[in-house]
Amino acid sequence: MISTGAYKGTRDFYPEDFARRQYIFDKWTSVISAFGYNQIDASILENAELYKAKSGEELGTKQLYSFTDKGDREVAIRPEMTPTVARMIAARYGELRQPIRWFSIPNCFRYERPQKGRLREFWQLNVDIIGNKGFESDLEILLLSNNLFKAFNAPINSYIIKWNHRTIMDIWIQDILHADNKDAVYDLLDRWHKLTFEEREEATNSLFNEQQLTSLNQLVNKDGLGYEMYLNIIDKDDNVKNLIETLGTLEESANLILDPTIVRGIAYYTGIVFEAFDTNENNNRALFGGGRYDSLLSLFGEEAPAVGLGVGDVTWAEYLTNWNLWPEKFTTKQKTGIILNNKESISKLYTIVIPELISKDQIFDIDYDYGRNEKKRYESLKKRGCDEIITVSAHE
Amino acid sequence: MISTGAYKGTRDFYPEDFARRQYIFDKWTSVISAFGYNQIDASILENAELYKAKSGEELGTKQLYSFTDKGDREVAIRPEMTPTVARMIAARYGELRQPIRWFSIPNCFRYERPQKGRLREFWQLNVDIIGNKGFESDLEILLLSNNLFKAFNAPINSYIIKWNHRTIMDIWIQDILHADNKDAVYDLLDRWHKLTFEEREEATNSLFNEQQLTSLNQLVNKDGLGYEMYLNIIDKDDNVKNLIETLGTLEESANLILDPTIVRGIAYYTGIVFEAFDTNENNNRALFGGGRYDSLLSLFGEEAPAVGLGVGDVTWAEYLTNWNLWPEKFTTKQKTGIILNNKESISKLYTIVIPELISKDQIFDIDYDYGRNEKKRYESLKKRGCDEIITVSAHE
Repeated sequence: MISTGAYKGTRDFYPEDFARRQYIFDKWTSVISAFGYNQIDASILENAELYKAKSGEELGTKQLYSFTDKGDREVAIRPEMTPTVARMIAARYGELRQPIRWFSIPNCFRYERPQKGRLREFWQLNVDIIGNKGFESDLEILLLSNNLFKAFNAPINSYIIKWNHRTIMDIWIQDILHADNKDAVYDLLDRWHKLTFEEREEATNSLFNEQQLTSLNQLVNKDGLGYEMYLNIIDKDDNVKNLIETLGTLEESANLILDPTIVRGIAYYTGIVFEAFDTNENNNRALFGGGRYDSLLSLFGEEAPAVGLGVGDVTWAEYLTNWNLWPEKFTTKQKTGIILNNKESISKLYTIVIPELISKDQIFDIDYDYGRNEKKRYESLKKRGCDEIITVSAHE
Repeated sequence: MISTGAYKGTRDFYPEDFARRQYIFDKWTSVISAFGYNQIDASILENAELYKAKSGEELGTKQLYSFTDKGDREVAIRPEMTPTVARMIAARYGELRQPIRWFSIPNCFRYERPQKGRLREFWQLNVDIIGNKGFESDLEILLLSNNLFKAFNAPINSYIIKWNHRTIMDIWIQDILHADNKDAVYDLLDRWHKLTFEEREEATNSLFNEQQLTSLNQLVNKDGLGYEMYLNIIDKDDNVKNLIETLGTLEESANLILDPTIVRGIAYYTGIVFEAFDTNENNNRALFGGGRYDSLLSLFGEEAPAVGLGVGDVTWAEYLTNWNLWPEKFTTKQKTGIILNNKESISKLYTIVIPELISKDQIFDIDYDYGRNEKKRYESLKKRGCDEIITVSAHE
């Protein structure tokens, strides 16, 4: 006998699961569309070279689902959408009007050990604005992030979006930390909260001297000279200066906090970086994140400034559950249960009853169990979620 | 340099392509939901055994994308949804209330030579009602099929749904054709319209004698004794009799025609079978099809009567194009272009303008190109599809 289980690390979406997923997708789509973003998609299979080019990264090697097809092509199941977005923009670079505002909700696969909040299969909202170098697009993506929360009626104290800027950090690392191993600093800061005290000591001891260690600790703890020096240099970048000034005039700034511990691990960020967090301490992983990666198209020999974000469905659903943000019902349409008296009444059902229900934009659920006791049929339709129940008898 | 092309046989969905696909999905979802069907989904990766069990079929072997994962599991990319539906029902067989009305719009992959209307990657509407043995569910699926056309405002003369019944055909093959190679007859009839005259002669000559050949020709041409005998036996099955009687009372019967040439190739059908056709002769492939397969759960040792249909997005889009059934615009929401005067006006944009547009459920598109001539900015926003254009200046 064949197993009825899904493939390891993947999910079956039964009606109630699908409704939850669709609720999230619909809200996402509605907010992002309002901001003038157009939805795109592509095949979940891509030529493997698209990922393998980013050598050294986990996604390019260990976590990638790839295989050889019957025509000897190296194929991969996409682990993320960004390389596809870059490929699609590069393919029509001359024709597309900038700024390009695109979003997508692709299904992605990563070969990893399934654990809480991490599956092998997930859906990910991707939002990108391409073609604007200024702080305006940084701000747009930050405020879009904030609107994602608002769309789900998130309490103002349930989340925080922390942002930082790679240009400022680059200056801090060079001029204040006096370190030349920038990538190592980013890697360490990105993992900081996941490390134990001893692991941090060990990681820092091998890379930095005592004075550097002190600066790093001050930065992370937002206390002392290391942090003050960071605050002193934030106006060295015009985009950061403009961002801070503009945010200061907006209500949303309550949830948008400048924070030097946010750096994002991935090397390709070139400007703003940000991560959103659940304020509930039991859920300390980032809900989502993003940033500027002006090198987006470099693989294809083009240049275009880009800012984007990515939100996974699993993490987002956990956040909604934590804060009890799911709606009571997923559809607002009335569902009418139809008890059909006998087969002779089918003609009336389809000529009169159903056209009327369709014209009223209602949902219906037909019970064909003529032989059964009417009260039981009624109860059965109630259990199937019908709001109202009618009986259809043959046309007299 | 890496290629900007999609993987062979797959499609990129740029905004205009995505909007077309979504238009189809939304209409499908709306019709099928009205009939009380709940949407489901599952992972595109399944354990390969789910398909390989159906030995001898193309989907189970030649056309299947399968590979071994890093944990030595045999994995397949789903070529169709039905085995997944069966698996999911079997996994919760006791708990699910029958009849189960489910639909899904999965992405599927088949390794085949890409050609017009056939790609390696497609999306397929799947609709199934499980748990009703009677003609009522046959009729429901037939009328649902008809409503799929209606939802796209299809002209009544643009399509026809031909149906037939395996029980009647089994009797005809045994008692009238006097043939014992039933599967060969189904296979031949299913391919009949794709074969040249010579190919038919050859195929029939090797399998049937002259008298059988005459009967087959009469059946297919709906003329002569072979066809008359078919009409004579259609009341031998109660479901067929009830179907014909009920259809006779319905307007929809104009598009629902009993036709003995429709048999569907796949062996698993056990009752009604049907196929929908574009009446335009340039498009003679079936638009979609379906039927009853009461053996749906047999792989899992369960029994449940089931009727279903499957519609591919590529074929359906071709039909809409043939009959000019695409809407002029894909969104009915007003799109407002926003010319931002300078960076000082951003505060007003986010505190006053955008909240108002969002509350009116409008879409907006912000132009940050302060330095550019206002007329050019206006024209550029028009070209981006804005219905109305406003200018936002700093709050005085």
